[in-house]
Amino acid sequence: MPCIAFGRFDDSFSLGSIKAYIAEFISTLLFVFAGVGSAIAYNKVTADAALDPSGLVAVAVCHGFALFVAVAIAANISGGHVNPAVTFGLALGGQITLLTGLFYWIAQLLGAIVGCYLLKVVTGGMAVPIHGVAAGVGAAEGVVMEIIITFALVYTVYATAADPKKGSLGTIAPIAIGFIVGANILAAGPFSGGSMNPARSFGPAVVSGNFAGIWIYWVGPLVGGGLAGFIYSNVFMNPEHAPLSSDF
Amino acid sequence: MPCIAFGRFDDSFSLGSIKAYIAEFISTLLFVFAGVGSAIAYNKVTADAALDPSGLVAVAVCHGFALFVAVAIAANISGGHVNPAVTFGLALGGQITLLTGLFYWIAQLLGAIVGCYLLKVVTGGMAVPIHGVAAGVGAAEGVVMEIIITFALVYTVYATAADPKKGSLGTIAPIAIGFIVGANILAAGPFSGGSMNPARSFGPAVVSGNFAGIWIYWVGPLVGGGLAGFIYSNVFMNPEHAPLSSDF
Amino acid sequence: MPCIAFGRFDDSFSLGSIKAYIAEFISTLLFVFAGVGSAIAYNKVTADAALDPSGLVAVAVCHGFALFVAVAIAANISGGHVNPAVTFGLALGGQITLLTGLFYWIAQLLGAIVGCYLLKVVTGGMAVPIHGVAAGVGAAEGVVMEIIITFALVYTVYATAADPKKGSLGTIAPIAIGFIVGANILAAGPFSGGSMNPARSFGPAVVSGNFAGIWIYWVGPLVGGGLAGFIYSNVFMNPEHAPLSSDF
Amino acid sequence: MPCIAFGRFDDSFSLGSIKAYIAEFISTLLFVFAGVGSAIAYNKVTADAALDPSGLVAVAVCHGFALFVAVAIAANISGGHVNPAVTFGLALGGQITLLTGLFYWIAQLLGAIVGCYLLKVVTGGMAVPIHGVAAGVGAAEGVVMEIIITFALVYTVYATAADPKKGSLGTIAPIAIGFIVGANILAAGPFSGGSMNPARSFGPAVVSGNFAGIWIYWVGPLVGGGLAGFIYSNVFMNPEHAPLSSDF
Repeated sequence: MPCIAFGRFDDSFSLGSIKAYIAEFISTLLFVFAGVGSAIAYNKVTADAALDPSGLVAVAVCHGFALFVAVAIAANISGGHVNPAVTFGLALGGQITLLTGLFYWIAQLLGAIVGCYLLKVVTGGMAVPIHGVAAGVGAAEGVVMEIIITFALVYTVYATAADPKKGSLGTIAPIAIGFIVGANILAAGPFSGGSMNPARSFGPAVVSGNFAGIWIYWVGPLVGGGLAGFIYSNVFMNPEHAPLSSDF
Repeated sequence: MPCIAFGRFDDSFSLGSIKAYIAEFISTLLFVFAGVGSAIAYNKVTADAALDPSGLVAVAVCHGFALFVAVAIAANISGGHVNPAVTFGLALGGQITLLTGLFYWIAQLLGAIVGCYLLKVVTGGMAVPIHGVAAGVGAAEGVVMEIIITFALVYTVYATAADPKKGSLGTIAPIAIGFIVGANILAAGPFSGGSMNPARSFGPAVVSGNFAGIWIYWVGPLVGGGLAGFIYSNVFMNPEHAPLSSDF
Repeated sequence: MPCIAFGRFDDSFSLGSIKAYIAEFISTLLFVFAGVGSAIAYNKVTADAALDPSGLVAVAVCHGFALFVAVAIAANISGGHVNPAVTFGLALGGQITLLTGLFYWIAQLLGAIVGCYLLKVVTGGMAVPIHGVAAGVGAAEGVVMEIIITFALVYTVYATAADPKKGSLGTIAPIAIGFIVGANILAAGPFSGGSMNPARSFGPAVVSGNFAGIWIYWVGPLVGGGLAGFIYSNVFMNPEHAPLSSDF
Repeated sequence: MPCIAFGRFDDSFSLGSIKAYIAEFISTLLFVFAGVGSAIAYNKVTADAALDPSGLVAVAVCHGFALFVAVAIAANISGGHVNPAVTFGLALGGQITLLTGLFYWIAQLLGAIVGCYLLKVVTGGMAVPIHGVAAGVGAAEGVVMEIIITFALVYTVYATAADPKKGSLGTIAPIAIGFIVGANILAAGPFSGGSMNPARSFGPAVVSGNFAGIWIYWVGPLVGGGLAGFIYSNVFMNPEHAPLSSDF
């Protein structure tokens, strides 16, 4: 099993690392601005109506497109995590050190908060909607939903971007990463909100001052992303450490 | 004509094959979770209204995006079938042995069942909708519809992924495979449901306990996928065995 | 200026050419089946209501996705024209001989007719809608609309697929070709229908027996596609024959 | 810091440059025709109703798809700017000379005007809608909104297309550039209109004769695009001139 990498202290402060933090800050800001913005836009054109199928398409497509681009524009600088759950899943698979990962988290959370604050300004003060489970869905169901869909996201990051065997998949990796989020919002949106990303949920909570249920969007994505990192890196990336017998 | 490959017994039990079954299980689970989930999500936000055009877009885009990703994340491990009809079509073209293909089927069906069971849990017990032909459409029409659209899907798999002459098409093959399913659901959804995939139909049938008409979604996709495998591999992949005279 | 290529007679009957005709037949059939099918699907779920914005999205996305795939799956065999206007535009630019192009047309038209006939069967006999200009739009406006949007399509074929300088654009060429059609339908759909493709219009006309206004969808696309072929090949592909002075 | 490039005078009049102006003219014409056309199409099918979520999806997807293609088809000839703000941002980063950039602007603006004029003709004289801030949104908010979303666009152009370190991202750059515009329209559409492009706003203003608020769509995009060019080129493209200490 790949162990968590405790990188040398100075690596996390190299010029390259600092550029990576800036890239994560900008990408998360732009992703959250577009994604949360699409939810506010729905409220604007419908005068705060309940979500309908066309609104779900609008929000899902916006998140899918914006995340694709946010990942792409940071890919060569920071790896394009744009999400604390992705960073955590990659740390569990030994792809990033804990300290550098911590700075990634800070950059992502700051980016999300600034993005939401800017939305409040440019929309003339409209409310920034937070994630929450729907009527008829309990917190436990919400957590499990977020675990499953974030597992899908981080598994996709591994298979298309982190795995050295990815080949030509690497070319379309940012599209795959964005589109699995779009697809999962179309399924999970009306139940858990379909976050898959603690920063995406934390920014609106901070700016609106409403932290109700925010733990769901930390626990679910981190457990799901961590599981994906653990499973993918053990089963598919290190044949010599695979949990299956090597007698075959 | 390429004959069906009866691989050596031990090939189907190699470490690589077992990883492939795990990859098919995970990819099919995640695809079915998102796809069926989008249908449940429509029922949630509309309180079980009849399908309207925006719901059709939501369901079709979700299936298209999710299948693209499901194929991509398994591509380098199992080939990314995610569908018993694809496995069958590839077996008829000599791309996979019958025994390995059988294990693929088991992995795909288990993934679909687990995915639907998880949906039942996380949605707070909502009904898992099954495939069925619409009012005004007979079973025969449903079977022919599924034959045609699955033909398109498996033909796409051959032309963009299995054909050694694919060239740079291989880079975008998972997108093409996902998007032909999205397009076909936009056409076939209101008639046969637009399955193209026995696992996609079987999972909801098992979890809901309702197997009415399930044969349509085995017969149609397998005939369509088999036809595509037979035709593509004979006409376009083996010039020396082409059914046309080689006198030209 | 590149002259029209009058290829040797036997080239059009080589095994490779016959495979190309089969590929064009299959790709056009599958494209028209999905595209026209999405229009029938809208009529099914809305009980023949007038087109609304969500229906326009459904039809445009279906055509965009399906054409992308139809082009991709024929790309390595026939070049992936799937459209008599594309074949004509490529012939004017010297990319295909007139005789081979004629057989492409026959294959495309047959594919479109068979696709529409199959739709009539599998939908339980629903009407196959034909292209026509909307109320408030004259035939002349319809022709000019089709000229402009088909110009965009064939120009895209040249820039991303036919131009030897295309480089990595070739990898995403089928996506570009499909998506310009999706975009143009979102603009032109409520006016001229947004055909850009005589085969796409001819198939429904034959199966419904209604040829009213069909000339619009031959003249517009052929003029627009021809113009694109003439301009792109002269301005961008043959610097030594460019209409501009070479004194610069 | 990369200084603005004052190219030699004759470079801007070379045959290659003139082809680039033609390519920018055609690409901007086709992009604006489709994009503005989708807004007119919405007005046509809804009889000028207020924008609803499905209309927002239609307009955003159309702009995203059309810009992707417009960038792709000019990429190898002019670099595929299709937008004065992109040209300005690239000039600030030293990627194009001021004089050549000025001719790009002229080509883009002419393309947008001709595209809008053609729309007026082919739609039977329907009104060409102009950009403007929504009720409840002030001009200042509109400018800031346009700054942020154009920053995202031009930053994407740098990261995926202009940066020599882009690697395989270059293959999907046109898709990323188109899709960030699609995503941003889903967020900004109901507030500032989501222009990101002075040419996209200027064409409708000229053809409708209504220049109210047009300054917003010059100031916002140019400031946002300029900022992106300045920041990206300084922070990520020239390590030896980075504003951060090189002592790390």
